[in-house]
Amino acid sequence: MIVDITSWKHVFKLDPDKTLSDEHLERICTSGTHGIIVGGSTGVTYDNTVDLLARIRQFEVPCVLEVSHRDAIVPGFDLYLIPVVLNSKDPKWIVGQHAEVLKEYGAIMDWEEVLAEGYVILNPDSDAARLTNAETTVDVQDVEAYARIAEHLFHMPIFYIEYSGTFGDMELVRQMRRTLRNTQLFYGGGIDNQEKAQAAAAAADTIVVGNIVYDDLDAALQTLYVVGLERKQYV
Amino acid sequence: MIVDITSWKHVFKLDPDKTLSDEHLERICTSGTHGIIVGGSTGVTYDNTVDLLARIRQFEVPCVLEVSHRDAIVPGFDLYLIPVVLNSKDPKWIVGQHAEVLKEYGAIMDWEEVLAEGYVILNPDSDAARLTNAETTVDVQDVEAYARIAEHLFHMPIFYIEYSGTFGDMELVRQMRRTLRNTQLFYGGGIDNQEKAQAAAAAADTIVVGNIVYDDLDAALQTLYVVGLERKQYV
Repeated sequence: MIVDITSWKHVFKLDPDKTLSDEHLERICTSGTHGIIVGGSTGVTYDNTVDLLARIRQFEVPCVLEVSHRDAIVPGFDLYLIPVVLNSKDPKWIVGQHAEVLKEYGAIMDWEEVLAEGYVILNPDSDAARLTNAETTVDVQDVEAYARIAEHLFHMPIFYIEYSGTFGDMELVRQMRRTLRNTQLFYGGGIDNQEKAQAAAAAADTIVVGNIVYDDLDAALQTLYVVGLERKQYV
Repeated sequence: MIVDITSWKHVFKLDPDKTLSDEHLERICTSGTHGIIVGGSTGVTYDNTVDLLARIRQFEVPCVLEVSHRDAIVPGFDLYLIPVVLNSKDPKWIVGQHAEVLKEYGAIMDWEEVLAEGYVILNPDSDAARLTNAETTVDVQDVEAYARIAEHLFHMPIFYIEYSGTFGDMELVRQMRRTLRNTQLFYGGGIDNQEKAQAAAAAADTIVVGNIVYDDLDAALQTLYVVGLERKQYV
């Protein structure tokens, strides 16, 4: 199945390194969300990724892998998202690791299933920013320049503003929505209630709800209301 | 005029920082070459770029700017090629300088006139490699991985193998031609006679003839024979 992400308004991001009960996983997968992104910054392995995929595959929800570790590239996902960290100070997060992976798998990859994501990571205190050595002291104009690189130089289908762990500047996010023409704008970070989900959904094309799934499932599920998705499990 | 580069087999690259007589410039511009790329690694300024453009514009040959300095972005070229040095160890040559330029000009750019080039610079002793801190100790598989990044992750119209100043490994270039599907393969470096032009033209889609223009114009013009271009000036 080739998934069309352009209709995605809301997705959950699940971390293979974190624990989720079967009951909670079922509530997430049958929530009406448009998709599940599997991915995380640390502790992601082939085994825990396979395991999570197999559990999600009991349900009909589209499931895509955000590839962050060469050792955790598991076949069987609907799509593979490849992060390119545009504000990293280390080229290995822009092209280096990608080249290593492609050196190994490039000849057998199905490029129809691969989407590049132009990432900008903006919370300096996050694992993601530390791991990728991201330059987080940027202003709206800097992020806008990255958005244009993603769309016009690299022709990426996704531009992803990641505040990982904290709720970001929605005025900045809205500005990127005005700057981008065709590239789809993902926003992730700190969406832990309905109000924040509403603000983020008004600014970005697609909102990504992550950590709150593990901290407060009911609050996580309430983020679906604001994008007009039915919570099928309660029908 | 929007130039279609896909038919380009042969181009000359002229350096604004080097001296060329009017007679020699005329012979180049009326040679039958498919285009002139204006660009250089060092000493390129707004003034010497404007000057060279104005002189080339006396002739009908397509003329494009390879942007390498933010201060030397001159309006009036047919196209703007933006180098992205995929094997640079410094992110400023991959996205950093691009972001700086786009921060200033992004809102007014005509993206129809802009083409990104995925560059791999392979001669460690060249100005270009030193300037960009290029990782030149790479094998065929590494370069193939960069080619796939250029084509499939970044959707670039051009992949450019640059041996700047020395004639490269044509077996490697041929392998990239086999790896790429739609992205156009440029080869530049050390083409200073007909035999090398023939070998390069058999391996790449487009050959770029540079330095020899300044050292031996007759030899430079002979590189046109091998790609079946008429030397109009002698008709």
